[in-house]
Amino acid sequence: MSKVVFALDLGGTNARFAAIRDDGEVLARAHAKTPRFGSSGSVLEMISGGFAEIADMVPVSQTVVGVTAAVPFGSGQGVLTNLPNLPALEGVDLGRELRLSTKLPVEIINDATAATIGEHWLGASRGIENVIGVTLGTGIGGGFIIGGRPYYGAGGSAGEVGHICVEPEGHPCGCGSRGCVEQYASGTALVRMANEAGIKVETSLELYTAAKSGDERAAGVFNKMGSYLGIVFAGLVNVFNPDVIVVGGGVSAGWDLFIDAVRNEVNKRAFRDPAEHANIVRASLGEDAGVLGAALIAFERAA
Amino acid sequence: MSKVVFALDLGGTNARFAAIRDDGEVLARAHAKTPRFGSSGSVLEMISGGFAEIADMVPVSQTVVGVTAAVPFGSGQGVLTNLPNLPALEGVDLGRELRLSTKLPVEIINDATAATIGEHWLGASRGIENVIGVTLGTGIGGGFIIGGRPYYGAGGSAGEVGHICVEPEGHPCGCGSRGCVEQYASGTALVRMANEAGIKVETSLELYTAAKSGDERAAGVFNKMGSYLGIVFAGLVNVFNPDVIVVGGGVSAGWDLFIDAVRNEVNKRAFRDPAEHANIVRASLGEDAGVLGAALIAFERAA
Repeated sequence: MSKVVFALDLGGTNARFAAIRDDGEVLARAHAKTPRFGSSGSVLEMISGGFAEIADMVPVSQTVVGVTAAVPFGSGQGVLTNLPNLPALEGVDLGRELRLSTKLPVEIINDATAATIGEHWLGASRGIENVIGVTLGTGIGGGFIIGGRPYYGAGGSAGEVGHICVEPEGHPCGCGSRGCVEQYASGTALVRMANEAGIKVETSLELYTAAKSGDERAAGVFNKMGSYLGIVFAGLVNVFNPDVIVVGGGVSAGWDLFIDAVRNEVNKRAFRDPAEHANIVRASLGEDAGVLGAALIAFERAA
Repeated sequence: MSKVVFALDLGGTNARFAAIRDDGEVLARAHAKTPRFGSSGSVLEMISGGFAEIADMVPVSQTVVGVTAAVPFGSGQGVLTNLPNLPALEGVDLGRELRLSTKLPVEIINDATAATIGEHWLGASRGIENVIGVTLGTGIGGGFIIGGRPYYGAGGSAGEVGHICVEPEGHPCGCGSRGCVEQYASGTALVRMANEAGIKVETSLELYTAAKSGDERAAGVFNKMGSYLGIVFAGLVNVFNPDVIVVGGGVSAGWDLFIDAVRNEVNKRAFRDPAEHANIVRASLGEDAGVLGAALIAFERAA
């Protein structure tokens, strides 16, 4: 009998639920909006609802081994802190709450690390040794595969590429610093930079649509975003000498509008050999990357 | 009979030679100035002279197993390129040249990676799992220990922390980019920033002496240097979540003049948990770190 994991990818804007079999087959999916400015109770209620929806769709004959949630920061085996894009869960022990509500073993891992692991299991970086995964969404997350294995860092919080500084005196960041690349290359940043340029949009999708319809100022915002991302990628190429940088997350849908600027900065700024070696590619699993990575970790820890 | 390695640490300003036994005992040392603006021939001649001096001091009864040279960039098993601080060796196959002149097996590794390995073998990061080594000298180099083992990257060039950008439109860097931290926190950068501030010094040591004698403008330059280094360390703490950052190299002698600014930026900018976890410490092996690391790699590869 196959094992099945209930997996949750909890982003700052969207929550994605799935039931996943140990061969990577997604048996059921559900979506919900993350109540961004609500209480922790409203977030936990949304999560219970999503898992209930998934449970209704999965055949009862299968063995459910656990629930894995991918959250925006840290290894999170305990109280969550420093959640610039999910303030409602600040100070909440999410693992404990989910254990109580689901009566199942629960693993919590960083959402961008989960997406990186998912892409390495079944997606764009399958079989590759040294990988940097970058997730462009409400914020910017990241994860590392080193020598073919996930790298979590000394305390489980490695991979926060969104909080590399690109402008020392730049825009204040939710993390408490200033000028983090998250303030120049995330979905939130695209909207802010567009508004600063006098373009009235409320989402990065609207900005994308404008740019695709020929609005040069809108295209210029994506270009600026790509340049800042490229500055960070150049530094990561120099420091980590990766085989590949896999770019996913909702904002990666704007790939054709920013990737030239990214590659231009990397070629201009990074050392030639590691820059030529590092492929910069799009993630291939779409919205499933996070839940698949979360599921793989759950299978491995339950094994 | 113990094994002995002839090791060379070839920096942009100084060349350090040593004969090292496999227990880490340094049996002989020699120094020379690196002919920075000379031809490759003048550099190779200097190297031959240094090894000859060492060979005179080491008992002939011992087995010499190899020569290890630490060069400023790359795994270097081939032609060297991108040497901002050692232009005379651009396009030279240093390993081949040294094999011909010494008649011994030769291993070439990055100088800052070698120093990081040396400190991990016998110095400040002994026994520690996840280490970032940073060398502040003519330029800025770096190396990584991940899971207790050196991390070389996909092509052997990992660790170039000196070429992380801190000012997108900043000072041009020898690597071809702009605003690399090497332009704000190396010995060369200290002298330039001092001159820009109207302080007439030719070396970072003179600037150090001035600051220690109470020159507040000179102290201000070290403070600025520490802030830029701290911005980069904050990013590395967020991305890599290390146990320790070990700071060595000649400029680390100015530790008391810059470390407060470094720690201040890290505490202000990095996520709290990884910032609290990451010890920032001085290297403890001084000038021997590079040759010891180079020797350890030579012993391991010859084993």
